[in-house]
Amino acid sequence: MTTKATNIHFHEGDITREERWGSLNTTGCTLWFTGLSASGKSTIACALEQVLVQRKVHCFRLDGDNIRMGLNNNLGFSAEDRAENIRRIGEVSKLFADSGCVTLSSFISPYTKDRDAARKFHEDAGLKFFEVFVDASLEVCEQRDPKGLYKKARAGEIKGFTGIDDPYEAPTNAELILKPGDDPLEDCVVQCVEFLEKQGIVPAE
Amino acid sequence: MTTKATNIHFHEGDITREERWGSLNTTGCTLWFTGLSASGKSTIACALEQVLVQRKVHCFRLDGDNIRMGLNNNLGFSAEDRAENIRRIGEVSKLFADSGCVTLSSFISPYTKDRDAARKFHEDAGLKFFEVFVDASLEVCEQRDPKGLYKKARAGEIKGFTGIDDPYEAPTNAELILKPGDDPLEDCVVQCVEFLEKQGIVPAE
Repeated sequence: MTTKATNIHFHEGDITREERWGSLNTTGCTLWFTGLSASGKSTIACALEQVLVQRKVHCFRLDGDNIRMGLNNNLGFSAEDRAENIRRIGEVSKLFADSGCVTLSSFISPYTKDRDAARKFHEDAGLKFFEVFVDASLEVCEQRDPKGLYKKARAGEIKGFTGIDDPYEAPTNAELILKPGDDPLEDCVVQCVEFLEKQGIVPAE
Repeated sequence: MTTKATNIHFHEGDITREERWGSLNTTGCTLWFTGLSASGKSTIACALEQVLVQRKVHCFRLDGDNIRMGLNNNLGFSAEDRAENIRRIGEVSKLFADSGCVTLSSFISPYTKDRDAARKFHEDAGLKFFEVFVDASLEVCEQRDPKGLYKKARAGEIKGFTGIDDPYEAPTNAELILKPGDDPLEDCVVQCVEFLEKQGIVPAE
């Protein structure tokens, strides 16, 4: 068969991360948002995603909506399945970061052990992992309760609910701490953007 | 706390795929390379990745190296685990395609059922999935045998090896068929690039 002469160049073996990131003018990393249910993780990540996309930063958000319905639709809520849930998300975040994407992973992820494992996946691969503690108090979250989950947990209709009858282990080494109970959403987003600018992930405007 | 006045705009709710792809000037999709072991899937995908990156196309390659060692490191080679292996890869490919990435997934994926499921994940999400059949004959692959796997399979040291004692179900509806036994690598890569140009995924040069 014949193919038209096209300008095709390649070398043997894998392209390096430096080649890929350099050519695409991108710097991959993962921002891992952790916090109680209704603390504002996804709201902040969602607003941040918009700001980054406006700035032409390749980014992608992983959250319950696109993970629990797909990749992790064969996992339940046993201790084992919860750990596997976060493990898989950590691995997928790492792949996205490796691709050059600013990955916004937004999950309650209540256990230090699981978050530390996700961090280790990244660091072992030479990738940056930033833990963002979305630090809203249980009182604030329970008052918001947009899906009525805290109410059900208090009534015993949901078992093992983080903050009620299952612990939330607050990060002690988070790179960024947001206070959505005190600061308006816009301030939280600005703090994320400024953090990414300072890290050299996103060019300052 | 105070934050400097930064140019921050966002709306409520999720950013749409159109907003993301439009702003990043990208079109996500998955190219799913299937074929026998040693058929040349990864070699072609690897060379294609380099060409796309040179053209500033955001792309990423998923293959055994970055999947079996990470996300799927808790899966073996039972029939059930093989299906789960491809299911997870299909879901992750879908996420990458959704992000705006040209996803190059390169796995033997011998069963039609599993490949069709991966296709369905994409199509249900409104994403394009292109099956690329890397059609090298068993004879060609067995002669190459870079890792000595066919030899071991013939000797009975590896059980359930695709093409030897486990079937390879060739695609009947692949969008692109490559013949790396007949055509040199460069021609196979050109065919992929021209296909992506024709599909409007990659701008013609």
